[in-house]
Amino acid sequence: MEKINNLKYANMQPKEVRKLIRDGKIDWNTSGMCSGYAQANLVILPKNLAYDFLLFAQRNPKSCPVLEVSDAGSKALKLIADDADISKDFPKYRVYEKGVLTGEYGDVSRLWRDDLVSFLIGCSFSFESALLEAGITVRHIEEGKNVPMYTTDIDCVPAGVFSGKMVVSMRPLPRDQIVKAVTVTASMPRVHGAPIHIGNPSAIGVKDINKPEFGDGVTIKEGETPVFWCCGVTPQSVMMNSKPDFVITHAPGHMFITDIKNIDLKD
Amino acid sequence: MEKINNLKYANMQPKEVRKLIRDGKIDWNTSGMCSGYAQANLVILPKNLAYDFLLFAQRNPKSCPVLEVSDAGSKALKLIADDADISKDFPKYRVYEKGVLTGEYGDVSRLWRDDLVSFLIGCSFSFESALLEAGITVRHIEEGKNVPMYTTDIDCVPAGVFSGKMVVSMRPLPRDQIVKAVTVTASMPRVHGAPIHIGNPSAIGVKDINKPEFGDGVTIKEGETPVFWCCGVTPQSVMMNSKPDFVITHAPGHMFITDIKNIDLKD
Repeated sequence: MEKINNLKYANMQPKEVRKLIRDGKIDWNTSGMCSGYAQANLVILPKNLAYDFLLFAQRNPKSCPVLEVSDAGSKALKLIADDADISKDFPKYRVYEKGVLTGEYGDVSRLWRDDLVSFLIGCSFSFESALLEAGITVRHIEEGKNVPMYTTDIDCVPAGVFSGKMVVSMRPLPRDQIVKAVTVTASMPRVHGAPIHIGNPSAIGVKDINKPEFGDGVTIKEGETPVFWCCGVTPQSVMMNSKPDFVITHAPGHMFITDIKNIDLKD
Repeated sequence: MEKINNLKYANMQPKEVRKLIRDGKIDWNTSGMCSGYAQANLVILPKNLAYDFLLFAQRNPKSCPVLEVSDAGSKALKLIADDADISKDFPKYRVYEKGVLTGEYGDVSRLWRDDLVSFLIGCSFSFESALLEAGITVRHIEEGKNVPMYTTDIDCVPAGVFSGKMVVSMRPLPRDQIVKAVTVTASMPRVHGAPIHIGNPSAIGVKDINKPEFGDGVTIKEGETPVFWCCGVTPQSVMMNSKPDFVITHAPGHMFITDIKNIDLKD
């Protein structure tokens, strides 16, 4: 239902849609809005944790591809969007305190503090759009589901207070699309890049491919191979694991629409 | 003279050469040592400036491609070298206090502090090695000179206390090598990546191509085009501009030899 609604936003400019979101006229997921433009995940942390998180991102660039980091206290962005208000331009936010979800908000301006640093992180919506253009199957989109995601047994490189296992997303592919899917996504390192694994799920600690920890299970047809990419859930999962006193994230699927075209995220 | 000496180190393993450097048996430039292995630039800052510098690097990845950031106080590395001692494994260090060079040392272990964070930064030696393998002219190597470097009128994206102009290196190329040089270096974003400019020097504020601010002037032959790449002098120049109380860098050309092959810096 939401998807059908979103079709009418597909050809609008990011600035127009951000305005509708800011004014509370759009409070649902942003999937399919502003076709061709990159959307971004959000992590907002107090400055005293920002260094550890930025270092975590530097050490785990495929899991945590940072598109922009705000100046402390600033609600504006300089690189990926003009005239943004980080506290209002996501349709839905989540606040976690000591690892516990304490609220969902359509606007976090009343919670704003001078020490908050915002991390805008690349999102797989961008590379899925490139996969679709290249004629590659994206099963969860075909089936109208959320992408299946799994916690692996691969340790992220820790940084300060942040550590944890890598989370991956999976898209099953027929044999003749695998190489193309690698080359298409390899050219987009700022949105997770090339797959982290192709084939046997147990090699990365995935116990049951039909039971993802996050998102929905999808059909894997006879002869198809599961292909795994680093996933933007990793930084959120790692951060929850470390239970910071205060953190704001976007609600899943409720993203920020940037002024950057997906094609400009190619190297 | 040093170049001839270095030939005998070309086929040694990084770990062996680091040992010779650590023991004070090599105290000269590392050009040509451990053929095929990446070398790294160094910036060591107190923790209170590390966030601004890491953010500067995130915002200016082509000028400041970070290969690894140490944990505060640690002399070890986890990703690019085993068994390293950051305070001893460069042949020569420079210490700057409030922007003034106050000393050159072969070993900075006596200056070590628990709050020091080391940034190991990708170096153009890696992409020059790839250019040479691809049969592309590298004029300053042909002429036995240092690469010519210029301060441009392009502002880096500032971060906290760090701001300044982009510094570029230049290699003149015949018409039929330009595209190949772009594609070869574009595949190595962790060592400055594709050129930032091709052609007219004045378009990026370079006043006299024959008078570089750093390094040596090189011959530009009839019909050749100057090709400009982001340069590892940028972070040092920007940092000197901000005059931090205390910073340690490597001495130019006196690099750290990593365990990472240049080919592994391809995306």
